[in-house]
Amino acid sequence: MLYGVGLGPGDPELMTLKAARLIAGAGVIAYPTLAGAESFARAIAAGVIPAAAEEIVMDVPMRVDRAPAQAAYDAGAARIAERLAAGRDVVCLCEGDPFFYGSFMYLFARLSGRFRVEVVPGVSSVNACAAVAGLPLVARNQRLEILAGTLPAAELRDRIVGAEAVAIMKVGRHLGKICTVLDDLGLIGRAVYVERATLANQRVQPLAGMVGDLAPGAAVAVPYFSMILLTKGEDPWL
Amino acid sequence: MLYGVGLGPGDPELMTLKAARLIAGAGVIAYPTLAGAESFARAIAAGVIPAAAEEIVMDVPMRVDRAPAQAAYDAGAARIAERLAAGRDVVCLCEGDPFFYGSFMYLFARLSGRFRVEVVPGVSSVNACAAVAGLPLVARNQRLEILAGTLPAAELRDRIVGAEAVAIMKVGRHLGKICTVLDDLGLIGRAVYVERATLANQRVQPLAGMVGDLAPGAAVAVPYFSMILLTKGEDPWL
Repeated sequence: MLYGVGLGPGDPELMTLKAARLIAGAGVIAYPTLAGAESFARAIAAGVIPAAAEEIVMDVPMRVDRAPAQAAYDAGAARIAERLAAGRDVVCLCEGDPFFYGSFMYLFARLSGRFRVEVVPGVSSVNACAAVAGLPLVARNQRLEILAGTLPAAELRDRIVGAEAVAIMKVGRHLGKICTVLDDLGLIGRAVYVERATLANQRVQPLAGMVGDLAPGAAVAVPYFSMILLTKGEDPWL
Repeated sequence: MLYGVGLGPGDPELMTLKAARLIAGAGVIAYPTLAGAESFARAIAAGVIPAAAEEIVMDVPMRVDRAPAQAAYDAGAARIAERLAAGRDVVCLCEGDPFFYGSFMYLFARLSGRFRVEVVPGVSSVNACAAVAGLPLVARNQRLEILAGTLPAAELRDRIVGAEAVAIMKVGRHLGKICTVLDDLGLIGRAVYVERATLANQRVQPLAGMVGDLAPGAAVAVPYFSMILLTKGEDPWL
């Protein structure tokens, strides 16, 4: 069996009981590293990885050209397939949730036709960011829109207008563009910026407080693991 | 401290380590029951609730008129506030994630101004349904739209058109309307129906297979804990 195991947003205590049990019993674990950096997934799970486990590391380049990353997943999937074909279980570590912007989707696409796969869901970054920001997201008939900050400004704008709550992932170097869109819509005062939620160095602050640092068109970048949350209108929960 | 603790979608093993630790150490726990039914939240956590814990039960009526439910949360919040004011911690149990269509939002609104609150995020039903359906949701620049099936057909239609992936919550008696919208859009063949994800009696099936049972305008209802997931377009993860 191939297990795709969600590890949650970063705090090791936000792993599920099932994730911890599967990792603690694993003979083979697999995980990606991005461009040679330490694996965030492995760091989350480090406390429960058995010392004797074999570790399959996939070094995934981060480039606009997708071919090198695809080749890295091809090679990783081949190594995992060897272990599975030999009758061994493999536990793939995935930060957050495996099917929500997760690297495991690339392995699932390559292996699920040939092998049994079980996906163990994890706490997603959206839920974690809302929790640390103290920001209830949606209730009753409200809609939540989850977007990537990489989208063009006009598309961001259209999507933000239509939902009661918005989570903008992958802020990174798109911070300036996102701030401009929210400012134009008169919504920047309701937006919260969250970085590295649930980790020791997490940061939570009103987005409006960051705008003064942004010269128009300036290439200000924040970490990849950051998010902007926005809720609009009246609170329906009183 | 008031803890709002997410319990995940139903399988007790999908509680986080932190949720299990806080509940196991709790002197006072609180949870809602809906219209007198057994509390789903309590059932998920049952294996870790200490026998000696005091239990504050809020019986919340399910009616279109919101006033009785609001009164139930008012009364529950008052009982919780008494314990907090006496210096005791209270752990509120929430199925799924506390800030994602969760009952805890109603307590948070009533108590967070007066007491310290920590929210422990949980695995949401969206991530759980995708996992059991074997359905990768979103990658790279894709957008995920989370909707309630209670919305009018025209609004459902508009929102479904604009996103690469859609999760429709609260299907219940709105199944027929949702099927009609998806059929009109030519998308019903890509939709998956999931009921009671991660529980022993879970059900996962193509939505198209359910349409034959639906006479036009028929008041067919499925359980409240059901969801329709839809992904469109090409898989970007190969």
